[in-house]
Amino acid sequence: MRTLITGGTLVGPLGAAPTDVLVDGETVAALLAPPAALGASARGAAGGGPAASGAGRPAVDADRVIDATGKYVIPGGVDVHTHMELPFGGTAASDTFATGSAAAAWGGTTTIVDFAVQRTGEVVEEGLAAWHAKAEGQCAIDYGFHMIMGGVDEAALKAMDSLVAHEGVTSFKLFMAYPGVFFSDDGQILRAMQRAADSGATIMMHAENGLAIDVLVAQALARGDTDPIHHGLTRPSALEGEATHRASVLAQVAGNPPLYFVHLSASEALGVVSAARAAGRNVFAETCPQYLYLSLEEHLGAPGFEGAKYVASPPLRTNTAPHADDLWRGLRTDDLAVVSTDHCPFCLKEQKELGRGDFSKIPNGIGTVEHRIDLIYQGVVTGKISLQRWVETCATTPARMFGLYPRKGVIAPGSDADIVVYDPNATTTISAATHHMNLDHSAWEGFEIAGKVDTVLSRGSVVVSGGQFSGRAGHGRYVPRGLSQYLR
Amino acid sequence: MRTLITGGTLVGPLGAAPTDVLVDGETVAALLAPPAALGASARGAAGGGPAASGAGRPAVDADRVIDATGKYVIPGGVDVHTHMELPFGGTAASDTFATGSAAAAWGGTTTIVDFAVQRTGEVVEEGLAAWHAKAEGQCAIDYGFHMIMGGVDEAALKAMDSLVAHEGVTSFKLFMAYPGVFFSDDGQILRAMQRAADSGATIMMHAENGLAIDVLVAQALARGDTDPIHHGLTRPSALEGEATHRASVLAQVAGNPPLYFVHLSASEALGVVSAARAAGRNVFAETCPQYLYLSLEEHLGAPGFEGAKYVASPPLRTNTAPHADDLWRGLRTDDLAVVSTDHCPFCLKEQKELGRGDFSKIPNGIGTVEHRIDLIYQGVVTGKISLQRWVETCATTPARMFGLYPRKGVIAPGSDADIVVYDPNATTTISAATHHMNLDHSAWEGFEIAGKVDTVLSRGSVVVSGGQFSGRAGHGRYVPRGLSQYLR
Amino acid sequence: MRTLITGGTLVGPLGAAPTDVLVDGETVAALLAPPAALGASARGAAGGGPAASGAGRPAVDADRVIDATGKYVIPGGVDVHTHMELPFGGTAASDTFATGSAAAAWGGTTTIVDFAVQRTGEVVEEGLAAWHAKAEGQCAIDYGFHMIMGGVDEAALKAMDSLVAHEGVTSFKLFMAYPGVFFSDDGQILRAMQRAADSGATIMMHAENGLAIDVLVAQALARGDTDPIHHGLTRPSALEGEATHRASVLAQVAGNPPLYFVHLSASEALGVVSAARAAGRNVFAETCPQYLYLSLEEHLGAPGFEGAKYVASPPLRTNTAPHADDLWRGLRTDDLAVVSTDHCPFCLKEQKELGRGDFSKIPNGIGTVEHRIDLIYQGVVTGKISLQRWVETCATTPARMFGLYPRKGVIAPGSDADIVVYDPNATTTISAATHHMNLDHSAWEGFEIAGKVDTVLSRGSVVVSGGQFSGRAGHGRYVPRGLSQYLR
Amino acid sequence: MRTLITGGTLVGPLGAAPTDVLVDGETVAALLAPPAALGASARGAAGGGPAASGAGRPAVDADRVIDATGKYVIPGGVDVHTHMELPFGGTAASDTFATGSAAAAWGGTTTIVDFAVQRTGEVVEEGLAAWHAKAEGQCAIDYGFHMIMGGVDEAALKAMDSLVAHEGVTSFKLFMAYPGVFFSDDGQILRAMQRAADSGATIMMHAENGLAIDVLVAQALARGDTDPIHHGLTRPSALEGEATHRASVLAQVAGNPPLYFVHLSASEALGVVSAARAAGRNVFAETCPQYLYLSLEEHLGAPGFEGAKYVASPPLRTNTAPHADDLWRGLRTDDLAVVSTDHCPFCLKEQKELGRGDFSKIPNGIGTVEHRIDLIYQGVVTGKISLQRWVETCATTPARMFGLYPRKGVIAPGSDADIVVYDPNATTTISAATHHMNLDHSAWEGFEIAGKVDTVLSRGSVVVSGGQFSGRAGHGRYVPRGLSQYLR
Repeated sequence: MRTLITGGTLVGPLGAAPTDVLVDGETVAALLAPPAALGASARGAAGGGPAASGAGRPAVDADRVIDATGKYVIPGGVDVHTHMELPFGGTAASDTFATGSAAAAWGGTTTIVDFAVQRTGEVVEEGLAAWHAKAEGQCAIDYGFHMIMGGVDEAALKAMDSLVAHEGVTSFKLFMAYPGVFFSDDGQILRAMQRAADSGATIMMHAENGLAIDVLVAQALARGDTDPIHHGLTRPSALEGEATHRASVLAQVAGNPPLYFVHLSASEALGVVSAARAAGRNVFAETCPQYLYLSLEEHLGAPGFEGAKYVASPPLRTNTAPHADDLWRGLRTDDLAVVSTDHCPFCLKEQKELGRGDFSKIPNGIGTVEHRIDLIYQGVVTGKISLQRWVETCATTPARMFGLYPRKGVIAPGSDADIVVYDPNATTTISAATHHMNLDHSAWEGFEIAGKVDTVLSRGSVVVSGGQFSGRAGHGRYVPRGLSQYLR
Repeated sequence: MRTLITGGTLVGPLGAAPTDVLVDGETVAALLAPPAALGASARGAAGGGPAASGAGRPAVDADRVIDATGKYVIPGGVDVHTHMELPFGGTAASDTFATGSAAAAWGGTTTIVDFAVQRTGEVVEEGLAAWHAKAEGQCAIDYGFHMIMGGVDEAALKAMDSLVAHEGVTSFKLFMAYPGVFFSDDGQILRAMQRAADSGATIMMHAENGLAIDVLVAQALARGDTDPIHHGLTRPSALEGEATHRASVLAQVAGNPPLYFVHLSASEALGVVSAARAAGRNVFAETCPQYLYLSLEEHLGAPGFEGAKYVASPPLRTNTAPHADDLWRGLRTDDLAVVSTDHCPFCLKEQKELGRGDFSKIPNGIGTVEHRIDLIYQGVVTGKISLQRWVETCATTPARMFGLYPRKGVIAPGSDADIVVYDPNATTTISAATHHMNLDHSAWEGFEIAGKVDTVLSRGSVVVSGGQFSGRAGHGRYVPRGLSQYLR
Repeated sequence: MRTLITGGTLVGPLGAAPTDVLVDGETVAALLAPPAALGASARGAAGGGPAASGAGRPAVDADRVIDATGKYVIPGGVDVHTHMELPFGGTAASDTFATGSAAAAWGGTTTIVDFAVQRTGEVVEEGLAAWHAKAEGQCAIDYGFHMIMGGVDEAALKAMDSLVAHEGVTSFKLFMAYPGVFFSDDGQILRAMQRAADSGATIMMHAENGLAIDVLVAQALARGDTDPIHHGLTRPSALEGEATHRASVLAQVAGNPPLYFVHLSASEALGVVSAARAAGRNVFAETCPQYLYLSLEEHLGAPGFEGAKYVASPPLRTNTAPHADDLWRGLRTDDLAVVSTDHCPFCLKEQKELGRGDFSKIPNGIGTVEHRIDLIYQGVVTGKISLQRWVETCATTPARMFGLYPRKGVIAPGSDADIVVYDPNATTTISAATHHMNLDHSAWEGFEIAGKVDTVLSRGSVVVSGGQFSGRAGHGRYVPRGLSQYLR
Repeated sequence: MRTLITGGTLVGPLGAAPTDVLVDGETVAALLAPPAALGASARGAAGGGPAASGAGRPAVDADRVIDATGKYVIPGGVDVHTHMELPFGGTAASDTFATGSAAAAWGGTTTIVDFAVQRTGEVVEEGLAAWHAKAEGQCAIDYGFHMIMGGVDEAALKAMDSLVAHEGVTSFKLFMAYPGVFFSDDGQILRAMQRAADSGATIMMHAENGLAIDVLVAQALARGDTDPIHHGLTRPSALEGEATHRASVLAQVAGNPPLYFVHLSASEALGVVSAARAAGRNVFAETCPQYLYLSLEEHLGAPGFEGAKYVASPPLRTNTAPHADDLWRGLRTDDLAVVSTDHCPFCLKEQKELGRGDFSKIPNGIGTVEHRIDLIYQGVVTGKISLQRWVETCATTPARMFGLYPRKGVIAPGSDADIVVYDPNATTTISAATHHMNLDHSAWEGFEIAGKVDTVLSRGSVVVSGGQFSGRAGHGRYVPRGLSQYLR
């Protein structure tokens, strides 16, 4: 089965150019200059457009032709931070791998990397197996796993090496927040980092000072400050900055494993990352759409219990400081390398409601896996980032960062044919009424999107086209990952 | 005429993958997955290698096949800082456009951007015309021009807009050094920057505080310190840092035109660039091989008049401070985006000798245009930079920075077929006895290079192959340039 | 003649304590514990108050007793930046040494250091002599001179050494602003700094990039932007920051003479000073009351020609950035060591009016010499600085900075009896109707002051007391100064 | 009893001047200009010396005259970091309050502030009472107490307020090191800081990341790396920097109590303090002589078990990085405000020897209380700090920092007559054979001191004079302290 995507503008991190793409089976077989480019004589005008004076390109015999005229052809999105079915606070994230991966596909994301979980006293390999069991045969798109290390001990440290060597799991998430749940102390963090420095694995860090936050939370509740906004007020940005700094220093002491900060939300934390990067260290960070668009005052502080929709950690940040502006700048400068979603949806009914009268009991998470590509494209529309950075932060860099490249994250000969045709001239309105996530509300309700996912291919198969979903649970395969390819 | 380059590893800024390249006439017609990739079943192992389960790629009918097995296939080098035939200090650079461009081709560089010159009282357009006259019909490879503005006045400011709009000259070099020669004062700089901010042109800056340097030079000569090393001692790195900072601030005041520092050599200057870039500004810099490998003490301070070979401005820096280490780090972090040569050769005989007994009369310049690709590849060999950064700093970024992309700097469908096949397993020894530059010595004499330029194509024509030069003067064409495509 | 000041609280940079002061002739003869302190038994309570268990202090036989009960006793103010009778823009500052020094005394300032002037082509020693002639026999309080070097050449450089050695002039002011008037280029600055590094003299710097400013001024006038506010808009704070940085680097290259930035007004400049100081360098700065209290929008942008009152250079800064807050913080941290006035009054009538319709012709200057002690004391009242810092920044540090200590700036045995009794419980309202400067308006009109200068002694003589001036022209003597005593 | 100290040069933080001091009982009664100063006519020469034209000073009738001609007269030293009799690692510091305070007096220190201890589960007030019991009637000089909070819980938090209000204990030390011994976690630290922010008390911090260090220690011992040098190698400076940063952020979150870092030893930590101070925060630090003079390689790495003498925490730092140079610079810039000793002596025999074969069992501490004034004076001799800073860092600032001023730390009317006459022309050699500490070795063995403590007065009583000790146990009294007087 051969598919030819013609007439579109191929966009990658380095630029955009009219290019046809030939897919053979599950793979990109060739990139082709459009006939016009080769038929034309050399361009004499300024502008750097490619010149051509040749006679023709190879003959292409396709079974299916997708007309991408007037549209962007981009590599399928790679969302490296999702939590399908995650147990949390006595309930579990509302999207299964089936519903969540289908919603991702709808939104132009063709690979997710989810988090398997080990807790104190549990066996790492068993945690990984449990998550494999949840995902296997369920996913509409390809998927991989990071491993959450919630109980770093001798056995867990050994398991890290084993997962890198044999399981295609090359990244390990630690928590400086959530004491008693996922929290690692600085000694545990140091040991896990040392192990990663040896194996080449990447340490992913949830950087908030949980011990200090727990004091503030207890004090707020004792004062009777129980509304959702206090979730944010008890997690000050300074404590994300502190933990980010601490983790950065511990990584130095541990021998400098690649260190990747998840869901960076605060200017202070960005400053730490920026300084480490200027020093040439392999320190990286992602942010998420919620930190770019939503605020503590407007959303987390919405009247009544409305703010519960927006309870996530780190919390939405104040709009009286330039956190969001700084994050957009970070996306421009690559101090923020990746946009992921931290997709962890909880319904209002029976889930978020657990925290009525006590914000600390509201399950933490926002559902965004379907909207990432659209939401970040708005940054292109408004001039905050370039077209290239949109593709780079949403697809290419996450693939390179987590050892999926060039199989994922790029449209190149030999790569998996994970391809999105994106229509910059169409529009979309986000609503819980129309989204495909299993979630009874949307943090993005009413957001107007300039642009629209038109067609999505996953390993050569069309899974979304013409507003129809043609994918299936089980098409998605587990993708074992190599070490980070984004090192300096 | 169709050429197929098979079996090689295509290297670009994002990574490396086995890819075949089909050239049609002067243009890249297609990138093709190697047959093995498509014939194979999906790869199950970790490592991120591309999977494939297809049946085949398009049939390719080539007139000529270049076997690149075991070699890298990279875009032809783009050297954006050369000075062929530049009049300086009563003599002129010893390479003509003919000899210099051929030497560049020998070294894997397929595009140069040279500097046309306007001096105080001269007409900008006449300067450009003079340089066109020197180059036309002489070059073995494609070429463009920046414009040196040595006398910023009303007419010159108007000419800037005209050159951008009509002449494909989109970058203008100013000097904070060389009072009485090329020097612009801060008022002139501000005005030129304002103009560039309006037109989108790039300001290129030679950042050394020439007024202060001239005091130090006069004092040294008055003391009888006349040897070549005093060229370096009278141009302290702090004065490059100062001028870099000043230019950066002036650009802010002028409305933030793209600002590009040429031949950055000093840690202090790098710090300024790094800070501006962390703030998200369009501030860029290049360095040159001499600042990465040579030092004030060892080379500029060589016994007798030997140091004259290494007299260039900025000078080689001391090896008692980490300038060179910092520059390598800057190449990793992209605070240094480009490696150019500042190729400006002067023979010892009758040229450098003009400064015997008075270092200030030694013509400033080193000849490197032939060796840049080889020299920077050594950074890959020694682990200082990645394979990707080699290609990015030597070809892709300079093309994007100066409006030549995607015609130059990349191997992609529709691009000019400027291609280098580089053999990482061969070796080269640099010597004046064997180089092709018109220069009676080499700053790089005896340097052993791991790696070798194997084959060079310029717009589809083989110009170097099998140790033979098959190019010709006049094959190279003037390439008008667009605005910078490397902005944030 | 013996004077005993009893019952007051002696305030110095290290703290405050009840202390009696005995003056003998022109000199402080003794500091005495108040009888109560010695009679009391040792204090057992917390608080660090001095303990005493003695029998008594020396018998004091005074001719005059000043009761300072409930008041502060502080060293007389030292204003190291005044411009009496300065020729500027075709007119001259409206205060003579007689009127200005009397006004200073009224305000609790007992020493001024004014600026003698040399211009291009003039002889330094003649400039100094001219200023001596203006001041001699005219001053109500003691005075010294800095030297403005408006034309750094061989003769002027030699004169620097001579003034240090023989004339008690140990500080030399250079201008990076005012091209064609006082401006020195970077080569001249470097040479003067080298000379100062040799002799130990202090370089005082007016740091604004005058060449760039002149471009902006010409462009504003060409656009028809002629109102006073454009004086500020054409002198952006970034250009003060730039010049401050440049001077700091030039000082490093010159061998690190003490470097003192006058009238620092901008956050960017403060950042440069702060960094140099953290590095342990002898870099210092003063600010002036106008930059702490007045703003570009409110004052320089006042309706009509009202803003002309506030035209000074550097200009008042915008209140949309934290310049003033940063300056107050700088006073706390000692990154700003001194508060001076830059007293340079011009009447509206016939002086400021010269610039109606062309802001660039408005004489630059504000008159504040009478109000500095009162204005900065408001910072104590509002909690911005401590009582100690008030005395330190207004008296002790300027004396130490400019080689007047311990003769001036402190109340200690052997010091000149320049003493102010300050009543924190009285109040003052500033107005042109009541001030003593020769100035037909006040930049401080209507300012309400909590606190009041009660009594002023100059070298043992009461010059202000009970709202009466009892000083006289000619009492004030020239004070030759030593090198800075404020070095690290 | 009246004592007159004549002929000396009184040195304080602001400068030095010839001044006579009259002591009445325990108190300074008067400072007097020397007769020559008053008899002389006004000085006309440059230099800033005080002028005088009076007739005489008050008649002084003294019982005892101390001739300080040719010597410095300085306030008695204040050592705010001593650990007399501290239980540690199964033994106790070898100096009792009797021996240690006498040794302090020998060395020119007239006040110590020692640390009372509360451990987990203990009652704060009982800890304080225990230390009072140890010290009462034993001390040769005055003393105060800080409180070590080794177990921050509800009762301890309440006790903090009580100690401030009633006990003259206004500073509380927390440990980020020593898990299981004194360690507080970040939640405990936050709560104690909040309490201090309310009461105005000062938080003193031992900033090393003990959890990470314990991992490194265990790994070293497991590898068989048991020699003393591994004490240093397992406590990298980065972990002091990290903890310093963390504490600084926690203080911000807690409402900015005064924060004082004890025994700062590392450049990284100094950088954190410097940044906080430039931001205007009340963040302070001390260093100790060992970090200024001794190094990991030379001392901690001495052959055999010799290095045990130098085991203290933080450890001596490497001499391959500029830690010591940076600390001296910090003393110049006031980023290091105080020099204390962290006096905590353990004999080799039966104490240090506990750690033969296991560096982690070597009791931590060095004995220096007798040598601080001498050792820091060497910085004056070598030009590293000024004479003023010597007095300021060793006496005046510690007194102001910890609420003892102006009773201690200054020679001013009404202050306690704690006075040292220091002879800059005598010399001293340090040796265990001659020192007065109860310690069988000296970390300073063989150090040659230019300068010598000549005479020491404690509250008016001569305790050291002519090489004889005339003090007595019990002369020293407990000094309750007020809040810090060193705030911005």
